Amino acid sequence: MNAHIVTIGDEILIGQTLNTNAAYIGEQLTKIQIDVKKSSVVADSEEAIMKEFKSCLSVNDIVFVTGGLGPTHDDITRTCIVKFFHTQLIKNKEVFDDVVSFLSKHGRQITKVNEDQALVPKIADVIRNELGTAPGIWIEKDNKIFVAMPGVPFEMHKMMQSFVIPRLKEKLVNLDYSIKISTLQTTGIGESVLFEKLGDLTELLNGGKLAFLPSQFGVKLRITVREKTEEMANNKMSEIVQSIRSKAGRYIFSNEDEPLEEVVARLLKERGQTIAIAESCTGGYISNLLTNISGSSSYYERGIISYSNASKVELLKVNEDTISQYGAVSIEVARQMAEGVKSISGTDIGLSVTGIMGPTGASDNKPIGLVYIGICDDKVCTAKKFNFGDDRIRNKQRASQAALEMVRRYILGISFDE
Amino acid sequence: MNAHIVTIGDEILIGQTLNTNAAYIGEQLTKIQIDVKKSSVVADSEEAIMKEFKSCLSVNDIVFVTGGLGPTHDDITRTCIVKFFHTQLIKNKEVFDDVVSFLSKHGRQITKVNEDQALVPKIADVIRNELGTAPGIWIEKDNKIFVAMPGVPFEMHKMMQSFVIPRLKEKLVNLDYSIKISTLQTTGIGESVLFEKLGDLTELLNGGKLAFLPSQFGVKLRITVREKTEEMANNKMSEIVQSIRSKAGRYIFSNEDEPLEEVVARLLKERGQTIAIAESCTGGYISNLLTNISGSSSYYERGIISYSNASKVELLKVNEDTISQYGAVSIEVARQMAEGVKSISGTDIGLSVTGIMGPTGASDNKPIGLVYIGICDDKVCTAKKFNFGDDRIRNKQRASQAALEMVRRYILGISFDE
Repeated sequence: MNAHIVTIGDEILIGQTLNTNAAYIGEQLTKIQIDVKKSSVVADSEEAIMKEFKSCLSVNDIVFVTGGLGPTHDDITRTCIVKFFHTQLIKNKEVFDDVVSFLSKHGRQITKVNEDQALVPKIADVIRNELGTAPGIWIEKDNKIFVAMPGVPFEMHKMMQSFVIPRLKEKLVNLDYSIKISTLQTTGIGESVLFEKLGDLTELLNGGKLAFLPSQFGVKLRITVREKTEEMANNKMSEIVQSIRSKAGRYIFSNEDEPLEEVVARLLKERGQTIAIAESCTGGYISNLLTNISGSSSYYERGIISYSNASKVELLKVNEDTISQYGAVSIEVARQMAEGVKSISGTDIGLSVTGIMGPTGASDNKPIGLVYIGICDDKVCTAKKFNFGDDRIRNKQRASQAALEMVRRYILGISFDE
Repeated sequence: MNAHIVTIGDEILIGQTLNTNAAYIGEQLTKIQIDVKKSSVVADSEEAIMKEFKSCLSVNDIVFVTGGLGPTHDDITRTCIVKFFHTQLIKNKEVFDDVVSFLSKHGRQITKVNEDQALVPKIADVIRNELGTAPGIWIEKDNKIFVAMPGVPFEMHKMMQSFVIPRLKEKLVNLDYSIKISTLQTTGIGESVLFEKLGDLTELLNGGKLAFLPSQFGVKLRITVREKTEEMANNKMSEIVQSIRSKAGRYIFSNEDEPLEEVVARLLKERGQTIAIAESCTGGYISNLLTNISGSSSYYERGIISYSNASKVELLKVNEDTISQYGAVSIEVARQMAEGVKSISGTDIGLSVTGIMGPTGASDNKPIGLVYIGICDDKVCTAKKFNFGDDRIRNKQRASQAALEMVRRYILGISFDE
């Protein structure tokens, strides 16, 4: 089964909104072995939408549409669907009741536009919206499936999980092949060095496919194998993963799509260890990442964002003389920050980051991108120097990733060397 | 001039990577009045890429391509370009020198794959890459423009700014119309309530266009006008913006694409005020947002991520009895946290957030999504209750946005009421 994802909305075309919906749908379909052939974004224009519906349905088995189903005047997707399928709108009692109960639950009044949302195309099955007012639409015609959902991400996610994916799974008869996709996530090594390290790819992959996906968080390796049976696919995948691990194992922090903060959180939980973090230049980004994970209070005790020198001295007991002698961005201060935050919070691990994120703040011997990361336990306190790039936000992200990677290596006993 | 943006890469289709490149290009083109008609994503497959090149170039004046120009084996865009334009690869000395100097500057060795990157299609103008090794490609043929750039975002951004946009501007002869796009960003009001508040849109817009773009950060209103002259477009835009402001002014925090944290940062700087933040449930997210902005040390003094109760008591001087009596998630604790962080840091403003982000941590009278936000100055200390939703990450984002909005309203003297 081939799928095409259509996203409707000027806001995506003009770059005001990121297309997270297409990414989400693509990910979910890939998981159930539906092949996403193409994705497109078209304007809020009837002509563009109708043209896209036609061309997608002529080539693919399933078409997913998001956007333009909301309550306001610029939402024209439903009108286009009615025209395209030569059907008409009828009032759906179930949807109307859903809208009424949703609005009253949130203490909001029912307006005329909300009432109109209970109108759905006659030939469609309704996908109920538990988190908003616009229903989704499922149409089957001429052996093709057409699914339209609202563009609000969490409403669409819920519809995918509770209706669309289960129904698609029923449709997927026994396939005569099995596709496996795995991702090995690396950090702390560049794309071409990694490529060279892996050596002869034809031999290593033995028919499988490998993609290199670099970003500020590291290089992801995406491996795809397609075999006759699931067992064969699993075996082939294990062989490839093992070969790659034998060549670049220390840089691999996950063999799934798990971000590094989840890996670190899992390791801390498994070992019953706690952490406190003193951040200067990363401004709370590391703590934010670690507290994105549910249950983080079991390992994350507190964080100090010691932006000013006064806060470093007052809260973390960094020595004022050390700051005057070496500067706030120095290996000595990084070490004292890590020690300080550990000591005041009584955790197993203290982590610290101090650096120059840019675009201002550089001096002759301290360029933009210079970062020191410190880590302490009861016995050892160590710090490491990094040189990142010129971009402030990317530097915050890279420094945070490097700090989390130091925690991972610390816990697993892997050397901090590159 | 019409443009089509093509993004190449399985990682985008299967949802592993967000398509930030198409968003960036769309935004840049819109700014110089090039109309982005469509955007599409195709797989790393020669067949799919060639087909897409053909169909895009037949309809549009300019085609932008990103992705698949890197040094590894899965990068096939250049090969497709050579085939599509019936040209050949030739070694470009300038590019080779760039690659050599880039790699040596970063202390990396030149590998065989890097050498290959100096090969460019004969009919192309080279877009030099100052931040990486793969050059961009500019081809003009049959009155069409074809631009291909690497998929690494910051490399592509630099090429757009230093080469592509200036060159496109030269091409844009005097247009016989002027398009203006403005965005009013609101927060703290739902989409349908806002829609109703604005009343008769036909009258209000007088030929202009209005789109409602809801997200967890609020509802953006995007206004588009197209008139014969720039002056007429500006006048029409002012009229529309004024009408909307008269009906929903208090909710509008920006009339540009500026995020709320930048608005707050600007207000703090303008008034020479400083802030310290005590975050519990938001885990550093607010501090991270405020320190994303260059020069943040002039208004942001420190942050305390008081995750544990012990840290609230020890660092923020929150009364232990208050915690036992009302719980850590309470209006009383929010107020004491704001007071405490202000007092220990000596800033003009103290801001605090405490709440239950989910999925765990709820109790009978304290549901997931319950958040208290406190704000203090020298005279007044106040806190406000919010009920957000079920999703942890979205709750962090909504709570942070609401906290920043409270700071904005505090500074501008706008009531905290809805």
